[in-house]
Amino acid sequence: MLKTPYLLFLGDVPDPLSAKVAQGIRDWRPEYALGQYRLPGCQADMKLPDLTIEDAVAQGAQTLVIGAANRGGVISRSWIAVLEEALAAGMDIASGLHNLLRDEPVLVEAAKKHGGRLVDVRVPQVQYPIGDGKPRRGKRCLAVGTDCSIGKMYTALALDIALRERGVKSSFRATGQTGILITGEGVPLDAVVADFMAGSIEWLTPDNDDDHWDIIEGQGSLFHPSYSGVTLALIHGGQPDALILCHEPTRTHMRGLPHYSLPTLEQLRDTALPLAQVVNPACQVVGVSVNTAAMPADEADRYLEALESRLGLPCVDPYRQGAERLAEAVAAC
Amino acid sequence: MLKTPYLLFLGDVPDPLSAKVAQGIRDWRPEYALGQYRLPGCQADMKLPDLTIEDAVAQGAQTLVIGAANRGGVISRSWIAVLEEALAAGMDIASGLHNLLRDEPVLVEAAKKHGGRLVDVRVPQVQYPIGDGKPRRGKRCLAVGTDCSIGKMYTALALDIALRERGVKSSFRATGQTGILITGEGVPLDAVVADFMAGSIEWLTPDNDDDHWDIIEGQGSLFHPSYSGVTLALIHGGQPDALILCHEPTRTHMRGLPHYSLPTLEQLRDTALPLAQVVNPACQVVGVSVNTAAMPADEADRYLEALESRLGLPCVDPYRQGAERLAEAVAAC
Repeated sequence: MLKTPYLLFLGDVPDPLSAKVAQGIRDWRPEYALGQYRLPGCQADMKLPDLTIEDAVAQGAQTLVIGAANRGGVISRSWIAVLEEALAAGMDIASGLHNLLRDEPVLVEAAKKHGGRLVDVRVPQVQYPIGDGKPRRGKRCLAVGTDCSIGKMYTALALDIALRERGVKSSFRATGQTGILITGEGVPLDAVVADFMAGSIEWLTPDNDDDHWDIIEGQGSLFHPSYSGVTLALIHGGQPDALILCHEPTRTHMRGLPHYSLPTLEQLRDTALPLAQVVNPACQVVGVSVNTAAMPADEADRYLEALESRLGLPCVDPYRQGAERLAEAVAAC
Repeated sequence: MLKTPYLLFLGDVPDPLSAKVAQGIRDWRPEYALGQYRLPGCQADMKLPDLTIEDAVAQGAQTLVIGAANRGGVISRSWIAVLEEALAAGMDIASGLHNLLRDEPVLVEAAKKHGGRLVDVRVPQVQYPIGDGKPRRGKRCLAVGTDCSIGKMYTALALDIALRERGVKSSFRATGQTGILITGEGVPLDAVVADFMAGSIEWLTPDNDDDHWDIIEGQGSLFHPSYSGVTLALIHGGQPDALILCHEPTRTHMRGLPHYSLPTLEQLRDTALPLAQVVNPACQVVGVSVNTAAMPADEADRYLEALESRLGLPCVDPYRQGAERLAEAVAAC
C-alpha cells in the first residue's frame, strides 16, 4: 500500500504528543524512518537526521508520511508548500488525517503532474468482500480491550516483534490509520462500510503457513457502545486462535463516556471468548496486557502479580517488561 | 425521507417473489399503496388498481417506488422509459436496488430537469453522529435472530401494529432497505460506515414519550460471522428495554454458510441479553417469534408449545397466530 522508506514530516506541531504517528514509525519500523522534516517552531524531535526534500529523495525516500496531527486533524496551510515540493521531487504522500489529501486541489494537481500518489490511509483502498467465516490456514492472535485506546496496538506490535525474536513467523496486521502508516499496509476498519467489516479482516489475514501468526491490531471494545460492532466484526473476521486481554487499571470510565464504567477483565474474558469460539471453537485467552503507565513501578508490580494469581494467565505490561511472556504464551498455543 | 402515497412499480418481474418489496408495502402500509404499474410479461400482481403515470399523479401519487428486484439488482433498460415519464410527471423515484438510480445519467438528467428526487434508500442520506450511549426517554424493543433472514422485519412490523391496536404508542424503525421503502424512512444500516453504526441507531430512536415504544428492525445475527458486528451495533445503539428472539426451526445451517450450524435459542438469549445490558441494565427477553412456514400446522403447534414450556416465554409464529401475545409481553415490560 505504501512505498518505503519514509521521510517523516513533523510540521510545526506544538508538542511531542502531536507527533505520535512519527514516533510509532520510529519505534516500530526504524528501518522505514530515513529522516525527519520539521518546520520552524516544531516542538517534536524523533532524533532522526533532519533532511531536505532533495536530500531525502537522494537517499531513497519513497513516501513523505505526515507524522503529525494538527488541531482538528486538518492539513495546515503552512504544510502545503513542502508537500508540493515532495510531490515535485517524485515522492508519494501518505496521511491519516481526517481532512483528506485528495480534497486539497493544489496537491491533487501536483500529484497528477508529477505522477505521485496521495494516499489517505483513512479511506479504504480496496473493495473488500463479504466475510464467509471459512477456516483459514495459519494462526491468528487478536488483542481485545476493556475499553478503547488502552494499548491494543502497542501490545500487538510488541508481541509481533517478540515472536519474531523467538524465531516464530509473525506479521502485525494493522486495522487503524496509525498502524497502517507504521507498517505501510492494513485495513482502516473504522471507515469500512458495515456489511464488509468482517470480510475486510478475512482479506487482511488470509491463508498462511500453518506455523505463521497474524497479530491483529484490536479496535474499540465489546463494552464500548460507540464502537462495539467494529470489535465484534474484528473477532469474527479475524477467527483468532488466541486472545490477549488489554486493560488500564486506573481508568475510571469508558473513554469519552463518563456514564459508563469499565468491565472487569473476567467480564471481558467471558464475553469475548464465547463470541470468538463461534468462528473458532479452539480459541483460547492466553494472556493479559496491562497499561500501568499511570501507576508507580512498585504498585504496578503488585497489581500485575495479584492479577496473575486471580486470572491464572501471564499478566504483563509490555512497555515496562517487554512482551516475551505474552509471546511465549502465544507460541505455546 | 420518502413522500407518500406511492405508485408501486412492478416492472416485468418473472415471479411474485421478485416483487416482495411491493408486497411488503401493500401488506404493512396499504394506505401508501395507491396503485401498481406493470410492464408486459409481469408475473406479479398486488391486486391494486393498474394506473398509468398520468392517473397516478392525478390521484396524488408522490413517489414511484421500485417494488421489484431484477436479477442482479440492476435497473433494467425496459424500465427507464417509465421512470423518466414518472419524473416528467413530477414524481420522485425511490429504489432499494444495488445499482443506484443516481448512476443512470438519463434519470439524473430527468430528475434535474423536472425537480424530482432520486432516492436510493441503500445509500445513507444523513451524516450520522458517533454513538454516545446516553440513556434516552421512551421504550425500545429489538428483534434479534439465531440467523439472518429469519423473520425479524416481519416480527417487528407485526408487533408494531399489534401494539397500536392495543392503544400503545409505537413506531416501527426500519434499518434495511425493504423496511425503509415500506415506511418511508429509516437507516440503511448495512451501508453505514463502521464508526457511525451505533450512532445511526441512536439517531433513529431518539428521546420519546415515556410510554412510547420504538420497535426496531433487527439485522444479521450475533452468530452470523459475516454480519455480527452490525447486530451488536444495533443492540448497543438501540438500547433495547425488550428483546424478541427470532428463529426458524427447520434451517440446517446459517444463511449462506453451510459450514456453520445455528445456535440454540438459549445460546442466543444468553449471548444477546448480557450485551444489551451493557447499555440498558433493565433489558429483558420478553418473547420468541418463530417462523414455522416450513412446518405443517400441527407440528408447528406442538413445536411452539414445547418451546414455550422450555423457555418460559411466549413463543408464537406471528404470521400464523398474530403478534398479540408478543405485544402483550412488550407492553407489560
